Amino acid sequence: MLTYACDLAAVRAAADRIRGIVHRTPVMTSDTLDRLAGRRLYFKCENLQKVGAFKYRGASNAVLRLTDAEASRGVVTHSSGNHAQALALAARVRGVPAYIVMPKTAPAVKKAAVEGYGGIVTLCEPNLADRERTANALVERTGATLIPPFDHPDVIAGQGTAALELLEDVPDLDAIITPVGGGGLLAGCCVAARGVKPGVRVFGAEPLGADDAARSKAAGAWQPQAAPDTIADGLLTSTGQLTWPIIRDLVEGVFTVTDDEIRAAMRLVWERMKLIVEPSGAVGAAVALGDGFKSLTGVQKVGIVFSGGNVSLDKLYW
Amino acid sequence: MLTYACDLAAVRAAADRIRGIVHRTPVMTSDTLDRLAGRRLYFKCENLQKVGAFKYRGASNAVLRLTDAEASRGVVTHSSGNHAQALALAARVRGVPAYIVMPKTAPAVKKAAVEGYGGIVTLCEPNLADRERTANALVERTGATLIPPFDHPDVIAGQGTAALELLEDVPDLDAIITPVGGGGLLAGCCVAARGVKPGVRVFGAEPLGADDAARSKAAGAWQPQAAPDTIADGLLTSTGQLTWPIIRDLVEGVFTVTDDEIRAAMRLVWERMKLIVEPSGAVGAAVALGDGFKSLTGVQKVGIVFSGGNVSLDKLYW
Repeated sequence: MLTYACDLAAVRAAADRIRGIVHRTPVMTSDTLDRLAGRRLYFKCENLQKVGAFKYRGASNAVLRLTDAEASRGVVTHSSGNHAQALALAARVRGVPAYIVMPKTAPAVKKAAVEGYGGIVTLCEPNLADRERTANALVERTGATLIPPFDHPDVIAGQGTAALELLEDVPDLDAIITPVGGGGLLAGCCVAARGVKPGVRVFGAEPLGADDAARSKAAGAWQPQAAPDTIADGLLTSTGQLTWPIIRDLVEGVFTVTDDEIRAAMRLVWERMKLIVEPSGAVGAAVALGDGFKSLTGVQKVGIVFSGGNVSLDKLYW
Repeated sequence: MLTYACDLAAVRAAADRIRGIVHRTPVMTSDTLDRLAGRRLYFKCENLQKVGAFKYRGASNAVLRLTDAEASRGVVTHSSGNHAQALALAARVRGVPAYIVMPKTAPAVKKAAVEGYGGIVTLCEPNLADRERTANALVERTGATLIPPFDHPDVIAGQGTAALELLEDVPDLDAIITPVGGGGLLAGCCVAARGVKPGVRVFGAEPLGADDAARSKAAGAWQPQAAPDTIADGLLTSTGQLTWPIIRDLVEGVFTVTDDEIRAAMRLVWERMKLIVEPSGAVGAAVALGDGFKSLTGVQKVGIVFSGGNVSLDKLYW
């Protein structure tokens, strides 16, 4: 039997570790979306999670797993997205420094958000080489621990706690859909859900403009994501060395949706459910409303993760 | 002892009557808003209620109180707002017709929303005289029962169930704030809250551009609202013959806020709580964040009703 970076025991341990620190988010339903999807949908509202995204689960688990000696030297990551804010808050809760490397082109509001959670921002050139060089220099100088956004066992296990809670609240789900970017959420939720309920079917939801996971599944081998182009800006990266094997072997399939479908789903959620989801967070709902997923048989009750709600309210999305 | 149009027994009976039909909405909190308000705030999320507003409580109670013979002839109201949609759905749930009189100038989207819930729309001239004439003609022709939007004992009792639930979930509240337009929500919640917890302090929240309740309280006598001018389009009307005595005698005070304060509170709720509230629904939060309310002493925990979430997503509010 293959061994993966994360198993059910690790997710259960993460759930115990982060209890009381991370919100147990509600599960919400909508008659209108059920009617449009042709089945009953249960939305796990990680948009209502602290920092507005599921990322706080994995970041908290990773920070809490450090020894006191390790933690005291702090944590490092390079990210301009939700993981950066999540790690900054998780570090502050433990009372240790978080060094966040961000490209100098990142919006001022994102830098301010990280600093609002107590993160120490270091700007770098907007390319991967300089991001990694800058982060490595910080690690060398401070002795801090690098916590990557998804390809890390403790991060994957933390994200999986969302599926544990979802199945506790709705045990008779037939399927679960989560968005997939780097794959931490999908891999963690898949291991958790199929661990507690082996027959549950797990699917990824991906924008067509960053469809590496769908292409990888079709090819049966890892494919990189070059030049992503989608409104779902949290899902641009390729899957990782630790997340891909789980997705390859345990996830049934990855469905893609267009940006127009994402926008339409996002608007429906705002209008009918009165919940703010970000484009990346609405991709699972968009899949459930699309013809491909609707044609699946034997699927009555579907859990869907609203992965985040961090959007700029200075513009309209439609 | 004065007798009012509604008492705790009526609210409790309403709660029994509408249980399972009306959502028991969640109570949500936000560390950010607590910090800004200087105390702990508990938001009763009626924006997540069916039809997106508390109005479904009162409409359901009123429709369910009718005898079978009365109900079979249907219900009538004149409204272009949330009450119209609420009454249409409440009637459909009972399987009886709802005749909704709307001004011909009402946005097409509001007419479509009422019709989406099965309401039968009759258009009239955009003035009160023609609205009442048209509604009365419908009553005469069909034998249907007029259910006004707020000044009706069963409507007031239904709205009060929101406060019953809020105090069940958070029994140690020191105060409750609700928006006030016609006063159905404020009067019902006040009777309910002070019925179960006599020491709880109840306040109204009103836009400065439609401040008849605040002026009435200041004068100790009912004042009409002429020429309202506010973004909070659900709070334009004067208080009613049944709601005003309750507000006069049992509500401690009414705080007013400017439209800029309402917009700022609304944006905070969208950004930090990821919840869509309409301008009228954010007025209670705006009061809690304002200097007047903040200067009250002895108030640690405050319940606030997010009264609705029905906004057009075709425009920005800031």
